[in-house]
Amino acid sequence: MKIQGSHYRTIWPASGAADAHLSSGVRVIDQTRLPFTFITADLFSMNDAAHAIRAMIVRGAPLIGATAAYGLALGLRADASDAGLAAAAATLKAARPTAVNLAWAVDRVSAKVATLPVDDRAAAAWAEAAAIADADVEQCRAIGQHGLGIIKALAAKAGKSGKPLNILTHCNAGWLACVDWGTALAPIYMAFDAGVPVHVWVDETRPRNQGASLTAYELGAHGVPHTVIADNTGGLLMQRGEVDMAIVGSDRTVANGDVCNKVGTYLKALAAHDNGVPFYVALPSSTIDFEMQAGSLIPIEERDARELTHMSGRTEQGTLETVRIVPEGSPALNPAFDVTPARLVTGLITERGVCAASRAGLRSLFPEMLAAAE
Amino acid sequence: MKIQGSHYRTIWPASGAADAHLSSGVRVIDQTRLPFTFITADLFSMNDAAHAIRAMIVRGAPLIGATAAYGLALGLRADASDAGLAAAAATLKAARPTAVNLAWAVDRVSAKVATLPVDDRAAAAWAEAAAIADADVEQCRAIGQHGLGIIKALAAKAGKSGKPLNILTHCNAGWLACVDWGTALAPIYMAFDAGVPVHVWVDETRPRNQGASLTAYELGAHGVPHTVIADNTGGLLMQRGEVDMAIVGSDRTVANGDVCNKVGTYLKALAAHDNGVPFYVALPSSTIDFEMQAGSLIPIEERDARELTHMSGRTEQGTLETVRIVPEGSPALNPAFDVTPARLVTGLITERGVCAASRAGLRSLFPEMLAAAE
Repeated sequence: MKIQGSHYRTIWPASGAADAHLSSGVRVIDQTRLPFTFITADLFSMNDAAHAIRAMIVRGAPLIGATAAYGLALGLRADASDAGLAAAAATLKAARPTAVNLAWAVDRVSAKVATLPVDDRAAAAWAEAAAIADADVEQCRAIGQHGLGIIKALAAKAGKSGKPLNILTHCNAGWLACVDWGTALAPIYMAFDAGVPVHVWVDETRPRNQGASLTAYELGAHGVPHTVIADNTGGLLMQRGEVDMAIVGSDRTVANGDVCNKVGTYLKALAAHDNGVPFYVALPSSTIDFEMQAGSLIPIEERDARELTHMSGRTEQGTLETVRIVPEGSPALNPAFDVTPARLVTGLITERGVCAASRAGLRSLFPEMLAAAE
Repeated sequence: MKIQGSHYRTIWPASGAADAHLSSGVRVIDQTRLPFTFITADLFSMNDAAHAIRAMIVRGAPLIGATAAYGLALGLRADASDAGLAAAAATLKAARPTAVNLAWAVDRVSAKVATLPVDDRAAAAWAEAAAIADADVEQCRAIGQHGLGIIKALAAKAGKSGKPLNILTHCNAGWLACVDWGTALAPIYMAFDAGVPVHVWVDETRPRNQGASLTAYELGAHGVPHTVIADNTGGLLMQRGEVDMAIVGSDRTVANGDVCNKVGTYLKALAAHDNGVPFYVALPSSTIDFEMQAGSLIPIEERDARELTHMSGRTEQGTLETVRIVPEGSPALNPAFDVTPARLVTGLITERGVCAASRAGLRSLFPEMLAAAE
């Protein structure tokens, strides 16, 4: 998507030359500095890539996968032996061990190059990393296209001549979490680019504030009208008729259509249901867990309480500062996700189309994947 | 309630002498410094009291009322003439014009002294201010007693031998907003003091963070076990069966039982309803608007967006600092309240007892007040 008029991906080869894999690095947006500073970082080695993942210079499952893939190519440039391949793969996989996409991307590149002569491995890995990044872009683009149809239909139904369609989103499921487009935000970018008037209510998304920082940043940089609200506010706006639809992402969707996403998603889905607001979840099929039968079985990651008790931002002097906002001695609990029951979800927007949040719905789009798990 | 073992009210005469009204000031806890610093401020003049209200050194409708009452007494000490009385009343009422309790308290003291000889007015006003403060304490105590019955019944029903009853609350409806006890927190303090094991889930309550700062502070200072959570988290905890009941306060309750309270209350009520968790609202009858027929008619105050875009807290060096947390150029919307429909409320806890959130329920406890409005 665009930042002040220029097109960006979240990761790209620093040089476009055909032999870029020989000496060039891979460039990423340093997301630890957003939303206040836009800088890029060049990764020249496998260790640079592992550090970028570990330090959350890059975040979001698809982007982590693409970075790891390029990281393996950089590792093979230094040592393409079997031992070098195994060591690089192990280091990268350990950078954030719970990210499923990371291991998947490393394994995919490893499998691609393992049978090749040592001298051909780095170039092949580089090409495979590029293919992984391109595939993610294509998948998000397809999600965006299918979601665009929903937005256009709702805009036509609302008959709001000239008035924007108000879309609420939670957390950041935008292009910064992917290589381009994003998942939940892809349909919104496509609608905006197509001239459909849209306005986005951006949930702050405590405690990590990915909405107020990353979603607000990327929408603003692309020029999409938006307003940041507290996580508490969406219900009131729905009661007032000021939300026409909600679109969120998903970290894991299970076989019955239950959706695990950033904590607080469930509350917005309840309010949407109570007020007749369509509530959509956008996701690539790679995040569907066809083997898990119900959302209640999903383990919920519990994160450091410091994310809740402290807050970082920019002072008037322009420096970044972290302040404590909870009294000393008051404990805090910080679970990262909750589960939205399928009954509250209007539809799942995937790269293959839109389906009901149910086993039957998933079967209609992904028969072979569901069958393989049954 | 207690702070580190010592009993406090939020406002009290600095001297207990019988002639305190002649020279002594009134002392308050400086709430702008909480939760990190506990200091008191002495108000020696009417202007001191008006400033304390304006600068939110005191906040919460009942406490604002008591402060204004003492402020009028202090004003009469300097000038007890009719002109002095009128000027002091006008200045105090203008300190926070939307606070209903403020005008009510000023009018009550004015009426009490207006017909008295000028020389008797200051003493009479001082006594009336004390009576207003005492009446607030008594009202909150009664709310606490009625709520205690509910907590004891739920604790017995849960049969959690030794395990605490988990109570979720939103915002700060504690003693810091009143003179003592509080409204939503009064039943919790009484249960704790009576030896009923309780644990409180404290909603952070963005954007002003009154939960994470004031509620966490006062529960911690009194010794009540509690845990701060993001506003997004309550739904997950209810899904997991980790919330046994919710109690919140109310800024305005209307004739059909709809409840207007801090924004986000509605979302928690939806989650409580979806998970079979009892959801109570504690309130003094002075906040019931018997003339308004439905919550949808209540005007919702919209506050400065800066409350959402900026955050204050304590740096590692111990200084207070304010940081910006939303990108420049991203607008923010900050409505302060939402309306929870009566259908989601298990019961209203008032100083006269507990009733259903409905016209019939209100009639059972407040027949003369409802009749007067009909």
